[in-house]
Amino acid sequence: SRSIDLAVIPGDGIGQEVVAEGLKVLTAVLPQDVKLETKEFDFGARRYHATGETLTDADLDALKAHDAILLGAIGDPSVPSGVLERGFLLKLRFAFDHHVNLRPSKLLPGVATPLAGDPRIDFVVVREGTEGPYTGNGGTIRKGTAHEVATEVSVNTAFGVERVVRDAFARAQARPRKKLTLVHKNNVLTFAGHLWTNIFNKVAEEYPEVATEYIHVDAATIYLVTQPERFDVIVTDNLFGDIITDLAAAVSGGIGVAASGNINPSGAFPSMFEPVHGSAPDIAGQGKADPTATVLSVALLLRHLGYEAEATRIEDAVSADLAERGGLPARSTSEIGDALAVRVAG
Amino acid sequence: SRSIDLAVIPGDGIGQEVVAEGLKVLTAVLPQDVKLETKEFDFGARRYHATGETLTDADLDALKAHDAILLGAIGDPSVPSGVLERGFLLKLRFAFDHHVNLRPSKLLPGVATPLAGDPRIDFVVVREGTEGPYTGNGGTIRKGTAHEVATEVSVNTAFGVERVVRDAFARAQARPRKKLTLVHKNNVLTFAGHLWTNIFNKVAEEYPEVATEYIHVDAATIYLVTQPERFDVIVTDNLFGDIITDLAAAVSGGIGVAASGNINPSGAFPSMFEPVHGSAPDIAGQGKADPTATVLSVALLLRHLGYEAEATRIEDAVSADLAERGGLPARSTSEIGDALAVRVAG
Ligand SMILES: CC(C)[C@H](C(=O)O)[C@@H](O)C(=O)O
Ligand SMILES: CC(C)[C@H](C(=O)O)[C@@H](O)C(=O)O
Repeated sequence: SRSIDLAVIPGDGIGQEVVAEGLKVLTAVLPQDVKLETKEFDFGARRYHATGETLTDADLDALKAHDAILLGAIGDPSVPSGVLERGFLLKLRFAFDHHVNLRPSKLLPGVATPLAGDPRIDFVVVREGTEGPYTGNGGTIRKGTAHEVATEVSVNTAFGVERVVRDAFARAQARPRKKLTLVHKNNVLTFAGHLWTNIFNKVAEEYPEVATEYIHVDAATIYLVTQPERFDVIVTDNLFGDIITDLAAAVSGGIGVAASGNINPSGAFPSMFEPVHGSAPDIAGQGKADPTATVLSVALLLRHLGYEAEATRIEDAVSADLAERGGLPARSTSEIGDALAVRVAG
Repeated sequence: SRSIDLAVIPGDGIGQEVVAEGLKVLTAVLPQDVKLETKEFDFGARRYHATGETLTDADLDALKAHDAILLGAIGDPSVPSGVLERGFLLKLRFAFDHHVNLRPSKLLPGVATPLAGDPRIDFVVVREGTEGPYTGNGGTIRKGTAHEVATEVSVNTAFGVERVVRDAFARAQARPRKKLTLVHKNNVLTFAGHLWTNIFNKVAEEYPEVATEYIHVDAATIYLVTQPERFDVIVTDNLFGDIITDLAAAVSGGIGVAASGNINPSGAFPSMFEPVHGSAPDIAGQGKADPTATVLSVALLLRHLGYEAEATRIEDAVSADLAERGGLPARSTSEIGDALAVRVAG
């Protein structure tokens, strides 16, 4: 008999609310014979204020024992900027070697986009998750003086770039359009840019069916609003991926529906799935948050664990719900979760 | 009697065509008593192929003698990526200490935007131009091997950040809305982020009338497409500024109308004005390029040199031309330039 042993991190703000709905839909979609076990972890601002801890070695050991992690959101204005981001979110991505940060963007029927016309948007960003400007390398001298110098070092390795580029080629190959775009800034960041471009071109030779293109990150933001249909799969570095996936979420229905996976394809560590949005403290506790992004993250989680049919059932349920949504009265977080749970149980 | 001694760098591709129109409008707008002298410099791909040179010390000396520089575009697919960017464009910005990279975004009546609804867009980005990830610091070891490591070092100094932040506050103070947004990624790039944030908050105390806010760069791309009216003046680092100004150009009418100034406010070196667009080799030589961005860059140039009335006349002419454009048959590069020259000569 099959089982899923899930670590659940509701986290801060609306994280609590949306994760509850994600679990509701997960429970509803799973076949009877799959045993779901969940263990909740209390990480985030509360824990930090109570103990000063963000993510300890013991925490990492405890999380490691699970098949996957579902995260709501981490972050609160009461904690200085960077403490929970570097001390929890990024620490976890690095510790569990989540080098494939997967962020699909699909404009579903009935969903509002800020773009005029009727854009077709259906692409996936494969964002590198363990290198680039996110490594925390760098430092500060003469802090707080008129002579302060602060550096940030983007570290890029052939090992790190090649594995994520290979992952992206494999994903492009598996999609009907078979197109892969490398996004970087190789005309300015020439050291990292050449590494990315050379590896991209080298791996491309093994995928003759995949059409490739290169676009500078600045130009990519233009295309994301003027020709989003141009994209199928995008592979890019950690920081550029951070930036363009927020823009991609905005044009394809907003961060209320943007899901993501922080994936370790080797399975050496559990992968983590989370909505792209943050903890939204301004609307927390009011039952206003849209749990759709979390529910779609649950679909990515299921697909990662091999439950393809169940993942698709969730995605279909979300599509159907969104298509109808314009005609529905405004619903609370749990009403949307209930509606999706009913559909997937269907 | 007054005079303007202008260095003109048409450069590559459509650069030639759009600069000709920029000069046409400049000549038409200047009062009789202002003596305009121009000296053309042949920089870019042609020069590089002929001599291997991009920008020599002698070139810099020759440019230095002028009051300002008007640039068309530099770049050609026949030159490896990075050679002209680092060897010419960035070299010039760094050599002449162009630390204020000014990029206004204004959606003018009659201009198409990819955004739905009827967005109001009128803001200015003050992009730092001489620091950050653009310094060329970093390097590569074990190049071309499976063990290659490439680094890019973002260098940020209190000196460099403070002067551009001060420039931005002064600009915000002078605008009716008096609002300044700092865009960075201080939750991840904590070394540089804290430097920027601390200096921003410190200078803010001297400008009690300026309303301030901080936005992460990823979120800024969302607001640029969902609430562009939120922005008045934005100050940001070199790379984030590169990215968000292309997006800003896209939403406010496209890079056909986006102007920029690479400004040294001290006047120690001449400032350089250029359209945000590149050399567009695919349409070069066909008289198809829109010279509006170059003409608007000429307006920024005139304002920088103290010709405020003439700058405004050009901007008004462009507004009037764009408002009428929908009703006009498609025009060539020089027809648009002619029309603008007639209007400013008024
Ligand atoms: C919160 C922050 C550390 C994070 C990132 O920059 O990766 C977020 O923006 C994201 O995209 O997941
Ligand atoms: C061509 C390139 C070096 C340049 C930059 O990155 O600054 C361009 O994109 C710009 O925005 O002026």
